[in-house]
Amino acid sequence: MSSCCNQEERADKATKLLDTDRAFSARSVEVGAVQAFHEFLAEDALMLNDGGQPVTGRETIFERMSKGSPDNVLIWEPQRAEVAKSGELGWTWGTFEYRVIESDTVKSVSHGKYLNVWRKDASENWKVLVDMGNSSPTPE
Amino acid sequence: MSSCCNQEERADKATKLLDTDRAFSARSVEVGAVQAFHEFLAEDALMLNDGGQPVTGRETIFERMSKGSPDNVLIWEPQRAEVAKSGELGWTWGTFEYRVIESDTVKSVSHGKYLNVWRKDASENWKVLVDMGNSSPTPE
Repeated sequence: MSSCCNQEERADKATKLLDTDRAFSARSVEVGAVQAFHEFLAEDALMLNDGGQPVTGRETIFERMSKGSPDNVLIWEPQRAEVAKSGELGWTWGTFEYRVIESDTVKSVSHGKYLNVWRKDASENWKVLVDMGNSSPTPE
Repeated sequence: MSSCCNQEERADKATKLLDTDRAFSARSVEVGAVQAFHEFLAEDALMLNDGGQPVTGRETIFERMSKGSPDNVLIWEPQRAEVAKSGELGWTWGTFEYRVIESDTVKSVSHGKYLNVWRKDASENWKVLVDMGNSSPTPE
């Protein structure tokens, strides 16, 4: 197994994981959170939603998320990423906004933070293995 | 750098991390969550509390936690652990109970789940690098 690295190489891997998480958020804005999560979750992903029971499996998560309003917007900004020396496991955390949209108008915005565990799949693409979120105070 | 492993060795590493998380919970019951977290958090730990702002640093987290009631009990049970092939980074998730105690009586119990990122310190001991929790429905 190849493993790595000097500090610079590890920082570069973390930057690439941050970029992936940003691309995930951009995709959520572009096509909606339901489709974006389906694209970025690992097949055996675990979703730890605030107030809910754990949900396991990308397809089951997709079915649950599909019941929500497709107009609402989930957007986030990763704050930090770290990748294991072996390069196949990493994590990010960041802050998110969930915007409830009705008749093309933002009706409410809730703020939170998330912690994601990422794993590289067989094609060397980062996928979200665990996704957890909770609420944050509303910014003043 | 040494890295590993065949599947059996990785499973063994995951079991050891599960054991560490269980020992952390046992310590929380024994000496209280505040002291247990001080012992098990990494120096640069990040706490992502439900409803709060992120808190960085073991000593800052300790100060915040010290303001709570020392009689309340935080107890948890890890459900799964995974360790990177390189062996220095891992994660656990599990379920917790937070018991509010007044006059030696359990006044209320809240249920939740958590996701922890762990990193081995210079002495090869697992420490919690990121701790996040959120609420779960009350079991029937």
